[in-house]
Amino acid sequence: MRQSLRGQVDPFIVMDVMDAAARAEAAGRHVIHMEVGQPGTPAPEGARRALAEALAQPLGYTVALGLPALRAGIAELYRRWYGVELDPARVIVTPGSSGAFILAFSALFDAGDRVAMGFPGYPSYRQILRAMSLAPVGIPTRPEDRYQPRPEDLPQAEGLILASPGNPSGTVLTAPELAALSEAAQAKGMALISDEIYHGLSYGARCHSALEVTDEVVVINSFSKYFSMTGWRVGWMVVPEGMIRTVERLAQNLFICPPHASQVAALAALDCIPEAEANLAVYARNRQMMLERLPKMGFDRIAPPEGAFYIYADVSALTENSLSFAAEVLEKAGVAVTPGLDFDPERGARTLRFSYARATADIAEGLDRLERFMAAR
Amino acid sequence: MRQSLRGQVDPFIVMDVMDAAARAEAAGRHVIHMEVGQPGTPAPEGARRALAEALAQPLGYTVALGLPALRAGIAELYRRWYGVELDPARVIVTPGSSGAFILAFSALFDAGDRVAMGFPGYPSYRQILRAMSLAPVGIPTRPEDRYQPRPEDLPQAEGLILASPGNPSGTVLTAPELAALSEAAQAKGMALISDEIYHGLSYGARCHSALEVTDEVVVINSFSKYFSMTGWRVGWMVVPEGMIRTVERLAQNLFICPPHASQVAALAALDCIPEAEANLAVYARNRQMMLERLPKMGFDRIAPPEGAFYIYADVSALTENSLSFAAEVLEKAGVAVTPGLDFDPERGARTLRFSYARATADIAEGLDRLERFMAAR
Repeated sequence: MRQSLRGQVDPFIVMDVMDAAARAEAAGRHVIHMEVGQPGTPAPEGARRALAEALAQPLGYTVALGLPALRAGIAELYRRWYGVELDPARVIVTPGSSGAFILAFSALFDAGDRVAMGFPGYPSYRQILRAMSLAPVGIPTRPEDRYQPRPEDLPQAEGLILASPGNPSGTVLTAPELAALSEAAQAKGMALISDEIYHGLSYGARCHSALEVTDEVVVINSFSKYFSMTGWRVGWMVVPEGMIRTVERLAQNLFICPPHASQVAALAALDCIPEAEANLAVYARNRQMMLERLPKMGFDRIAPPEGAFYIYADVSALTENSLSFAAEVLEKAGVAVTPGLDFDPERGARTLRFSYARATADIAEGLDRLERFMAAR
Repeated sequence: MRQSLRGQVDPFIVMDVMDAAARAEAAGRHVIHMEVGQPGTPAPEGARRALAEALAQPLGYTVALGLPALRAGIAELYRRWYGVELDPARVIVTPGSSGAFILAFSALFDAGDRVAMGFPGYPSYRQILRAMSLAPVGIPTRPEDRYQPRPEDLPQAEGLILASPGNPSGTVLTAPELAALSEAAQAKGMALISDEIYHGLSYGARCHSALEVTDEVVVINSFSKYFSMTGWRVGWMVVPEGMIRTVERLAQNLFICPPHASQVAALAALDCIPEAEANLAVYARNRQMMLERLPKMGFDRIAPPEGAFYIYADVSALTENSLSFAAEVLEKAGVAVTPGLDFDPERGARTLRFSYARATADIAEGLDRLERFMAAR
């Protein structure tokens, strides 16, 4: 059968690494998972309890933009987290942040439009854009800028995606940096999309939302990370008032609604902040351990990981091929890590991403294995 | 902020009708729901029990193509339902049939490609295509053909969507009709997509899958209808072997995975056939009642509803404006019905769709109300 050109996107390498790790486990190996960006913890207990209680109801379609109480609860987060008063009508519940990107890209851009983003960055930005006949434009970033783009780096394009905390870098944009980038984008007529999926997971100053500096932005977030609900596929976007009806029509047709059961769980998760903060305390301990031990074993060129649960290491002193290096680490050390090529098609052959989202004992064991592997090299 | 041209899709009218009905209910009115295409019943009890038991697990990301046991279980359905031996590797679990359409369209078509479908038809085909920079091409169908396209009707286009049972018509394609349409599409170089979301819901001969007549087809189905799981957003597609890797890469990037909790419930639903068949028996009774009473009150020009849970009526003797007629029926009779314009932008101003998916008592009450409304006109 015929296939399209735009459908020939690159694989999401981390998912291929997950598959390789799963095959190793099926063959009896024990693998420490530092590849995938997800907590080892389940959804908050209160979220699971709320769903268990709701299971007697039909859980049919919800309205396309999501349960009104959930939209209101998310708007309330913006008041508490950022001091931003937000009309719940601007909050749109989506099938994960993935669904939010599909809605944002179709609402904002026509075929052939260019959308810029810092390299390294989340690989699916590029692939979703390609699948929608849009052209991703990479902005090479510098370690000395914490792998975030400078305002003067912005190319000619119709859109700009910012990510803070960044994935894979974990680095965070300050409010003045966000404001300068937002102004530069607006001056160039670029629609601004701010990926804030790792908000809540920061280890120094709090994360700033782009909504603190402008209303002319599409903010994207999710219950996956801070609320530990990756597989539930429930995220959200905040859009300017003039975009609500456009996104509603797209959401009605593209998705009908986000998964109802997941929305029920997410609504209850909003009241489970202590459990989310307890998870954060685990990541903070893991991060401290990673920062102490990785440099000593040779992974010493790393971005300051101020948020999320990743460490992005320049391994150019060790390899020119992060793909085969990651395969070697899985094979010899029994630790799954992600090759940088997922995040930077140009320079990622010399970088690796380590995730520290799992239990502290797993991270400690992973570090032991990496230490022995590096010592034996 | 800038908005795209392709993002300006038509609203999904039935969802606007749902909103109007919800507002009437919030104002204290009692409304009978004959507008929306979803059962009033919850997911099968076994499905809900399986999820309740799984809630202690993390339910993180699954692999992009879905739980292997679920893919195998769906493949087994094809053996039981159609006598088709199907490699589970060709089964791809998706976030609802909506997600399957997005994957199919991006895997098959490039911006500007044309995709044909019978009018009347499911409105989101057109809107998803537009949002993806594709051009929907309507094939006007005839009542005497049961609102299904003839092989000689196919226009020049890159793709063809068939739907059997049709929505809104409920009409079913025979195996020879499917074969003739599949051959005609292949002769014209059109990729064939067969929407089989209402399979299992038929009232005469069983429904035939396009897989019985060709492997060169993308079949789309879902747990929403027969398994009564609309809000769970879990569907599937069957693709030719040569498309699996393309769709896998797209699914990894566009969706990461279908909702895990919904996949757990869907897997258990496969063992709940008696409950699904009991629901079918209710629809069969409702259908009989609709077919007896609707013609007597003036809705006498209807397609033979051999499947699904819809009746599509030509109301040209009653109105030239199905939108305002439906609003009048909601206002005066307290019954929500769907204007045909959702399904046929050209001729739908003179048609209505009635859904009979709810409990029999509701359908009887709805018919009583419609009878009084029509008598008073």
